[in-house]
Amino acid sequence: MPSADRQCEVVVVGAGYAGLSAARRLHRLGVDVLVVEARPRVGGRVWTETLPSGAVVDHGGQWVGPGQDRLEALAAELDVGTFATFTTGAGVELRQGARHTYAGLVPTSDSVAAAEGVEAIFDLDLTAQQVPLDAPWSAPDAVAWDEQTLGGWLTDHVKSPAARSMIDAAVKGVFGAEPGEMSLLFALFYLHAGGGLMNLARTTGGAQERRFHGGAQQMALALAAELGDRLLLSSPVRRVDYDDDSVVVVGEGGAGAGDGTAGVTVVRARRAIVAMAPALVARLEWAPALPAARTQLSMRAPMGAVTKVHAVYDAPFWRDEGLNGQLVADTGALRITFDDSPADASHGVLVGFVVGNECRRLDDRPAEERRAVVLDDLARAFGRRAGSPLEFVEQRWCAEPFTAGGPVAVFSPGLLTGCGEALRRPVGAVHWAGTETATRWCGYIDGALSSGERAADEVLAALAR
Amino acid sequence: MPSADRQCEVVVVGAGYAGLSAARRLHRLGVDVLVVEARPRVGGRVWTETLPSGAVVDHGGQWVGPGQDRLEALAAELDVGTFATFTTGAGVELRQGARHTYAGLVPTSDSVAAAEGVEAIFDLDLTAQQVPLDAPWSAPDAVAWDEQTLGGWLTDHVKSPAARSMIDAAVKGVFGAEPGEMSLLFALFYLHAGGGLMNLARTTGGAQERRFHGGAQQMALALAAELGDRLLLSSPVRRVDYDDDSVVVVGEGGAGAGDGTAGVTVVRARRAIVAMAPALVARLEWAPALPAARTQLSMRAPMGAVTKVHAVYDAPFWRDEGLNGQLVADTGALRITFDDSPADASHGVLVGFVVGNECRRLDDRPAEERRAVVLDDLARAFGRRAGSPLEFVEQRWCAEPFTAGGPVAVFSPGLLTGCGEALRRPVGAVHWAGTETATRWCGYIDGALSSGERAADEVLAALAR
Repeated sequence: MPSADRQCEVVVVGAGYAGLSAARRLHRLGVDVLVVEARPRVGGRVWTETLPSGAVVDHGGQWVGPGQDRLEALAAELDVGTFATFTTGAGVELRQGARHTYAGLVPTSDSVAAAEGVEAIFDLDLTAQQVPLDAPWSAPDAVAWDEQTLGGWLTDHVKSPAARSMIDAAVKGVFGAEPGEMSLLFALFYLHAGGGLMNLARTTGGAQERRFHGGAQQMALALAAELGDRLLLSSPVRRVDYDDDSVVVVGEGGAGAGDGTAGVTVVRARRAIVAMAPALVARLEWAPALPAARTQLSMRAPMGAVTKVHAVYDAPFWRDEGLNGQLVADTGALRITFDDSPADASHGVLVGFVVGNECRRLDDRPAEERRAVVLDDLARAFGRRAGSPLEFVEQRWCAEPFTAGGPVAVFSPGLLTGCGEALRRPVGAVHWAGTETATRWCGYIDGALSSGERAADEVLAALAR
Repeated sequence: MPSADRQCEVVVVGAGYAGLSAARRLHRLGVDVLVVEARPRVGGRVWTETLPSGAVVDHGGQWVGPGQDRLEALAAELDVGTFATFTTGAGVELRQGARHTYAGLVPTSDSVAAAEGVEAIFDLDLTAQQVPLDAPWSAPDAVAWDEQTLGGWLTDHVKSPAARSMIDAAVKGVFGAEPGEMSLLFALFYLHAGGGLMNLARTTGGAQERRFHGGAQQMALALAAELGDRLLLSSPVRRVDYDDDSVVVVGEGGAGAGDGTAGVTVVRARRAIVAMAPALVARLEWAPALPAARTQLSMRAPMGAVTKVHAVYDAPFWRDEGLNGQLVADTGALRITFDDSPADASHGVLVGFVVGNECRRLDDRPAEERRAVVLDDLARAFGRRAGSPLEFVEQRWCAEPFTAGGPVAVFSPGLLTGCGEALRRPVGAVHWAGTETATRWCGYIDGALSSGERAADEVLAALAR
């Protein structure tokens, strides 16, 4: 079997934005670094593709908003421009089978419910500010919050079904998961880290404010180019042997990968940065076994469930009807959409999310049936024309072997108070990065970038000792 | 690389009691079966070892009690005898730093709290009876129960801290996990499946009623002997390719395993039974990708955390002091112990459990420190002599690569209502066994046995089509 043995000072596992950010910082400071990536591409949960029609779509993370300073700085440095998400006109609300339109942030077909919903969101966002971002487990009511789910809190605090369904849609859009499957303490931390649920759910002035001309993967591609041959693609890591002073990473790919035969990559380094979602860390073989808190953490941080769909049309026809392409629905497979047309509106694109229980239920149906269900939902919201796109693509993140869900891990009750301190604590010569370890913009590209920088700094300090 | 290609009608992945039970049923009916096991031994979470002192200890599952009919029948058939857990005398209660003794089932140093605790347990056990064992997601309040944790329910229903700590100790002993990390719906299902928390927590008349002369792994060894060369040990499965009519299982071991070199095992079969804990299923590579509900389920069923310790003495000296060897503590690393001496009391053995948060916190300390902490706790409970055993062993289940925790998976909020139906639903030619799929005695050896029989029956029906 062909085998590529490499030696370096620091090996980085994972070429998403976290791994690339860590590698770049180290590389620029003259550290001998090598990035090993399972997929044939960089970017992790960010992946831009040009469809046969010419439409450029982001299958994963795609937006940037105020406060995401690291991502903005990186895009500016690499000369990737942004433009505003299209928001002119009304949103569509599908509620209990009826279609409404609404102006502004919040669906208002039931105005009393809208008011109750907004109040509950403010309550959540205010409470979230009590959670220390670097140590959520030390929040005043950490244990009580961590033995509840966000869904349980909402059931106790939100009485009107319409208000609840509005908040559920926002939560599902943000986390890719049901409110009832995540720890309240985690949800509060996550909201705090991103400026609150209202901020995370909105376009104008919020986390979906702007998009990247040419897609969100471009900065990852530029970072990869800078690393050159210090990046190995198509090399899934299978095993990590480590002690306090060294790491040996064993994976597939390597010498044989280029010529289509199986190969083995063995990388020996002084330090490793593992930049993977926690649930995926558990799939590697660790020798010695990781501490119990770390192993347990990895089993309590499931990925959300999301299938992202794009429908391409010859024009953004909904704009002519005074619609902004945003949908909030309380039934159906597709609960949330946005206008995803290019800046010049040379064609029309709607992007939608099938999330949580809907994603899990629809996923094992045949592809044609999934497509038909989603197009029905689009037609219900935006008219018959929406049901017949020129092009339709779905990205099933749950079926991606090196992602297993998305957009982000949702921490189960008990994780943060029971094993939260293991999230960033190095184990021997192994350090941890990835957006789930970020203290600002956890779950976002910006958080991935800062997590990589933090891990790089830890490694620099360790190498200097 | 040496490669062993095998062909059979049904391949079973995992030689715990579930896999062995499935394989035996099929084998006895003339089906050509092969069992592939990652470890060098059978039994899964049941493992009996003879220590240097001669003491026979069960590192995993060890007890049998009323209602575990399949396990009793199997032991009787294979001529493995049982004897009563020693319960004569008083238990020790360590509460808020003070030592008490108590008679009967329940620690009574605070009798008002004891009454409140017992009432809450009865409430739980009565509520549990409303959960349908074959479809917990169809319980009357399934969604509301599944967005709460058992810990949250206890916080709402149990006011006295002493009552709460008593119930917490029982829950931790049964599940190997904190009440605040598991779904209330799951907990109710699990309690119903095993006759209630009171039944699961007790010795006399309950789930810890009797032990096996010679240990609980013996029946697994006998089943393995019956299978003969239809069982491959030390062959971790890495990949499963499947469609509706066939399965190819690819693993390590095989041809090279016997001579110490790496090898590859490839098994082609018409059907597979995967008898692994859900969290471990996610570590295999699946082609095609498993349906989202199944992948998501595997990330929402973390293993509990338990380190099981045995201390061996020249005699069960605590019996002379009127103690039965049982401890319930509300602080310290060791919260629960039992008398684990052999039937003839030729030497004395205490078995203890370090569970949940205590396990996760203690696990990354050096081995000597873990030992010292646990022996201190034993001395606090049973006197100085208990702190100086002849022999001390710990079994850290979280560090076992093919187990990753124990004694059982605890389902996170949202799992049962969001992906519960995927638990037993076959995917193409792949069927699921394992105690976590059982509808009676889920989490117990008895449940493992019935799950294997159920999966075998599914496969027989499919092969007959």
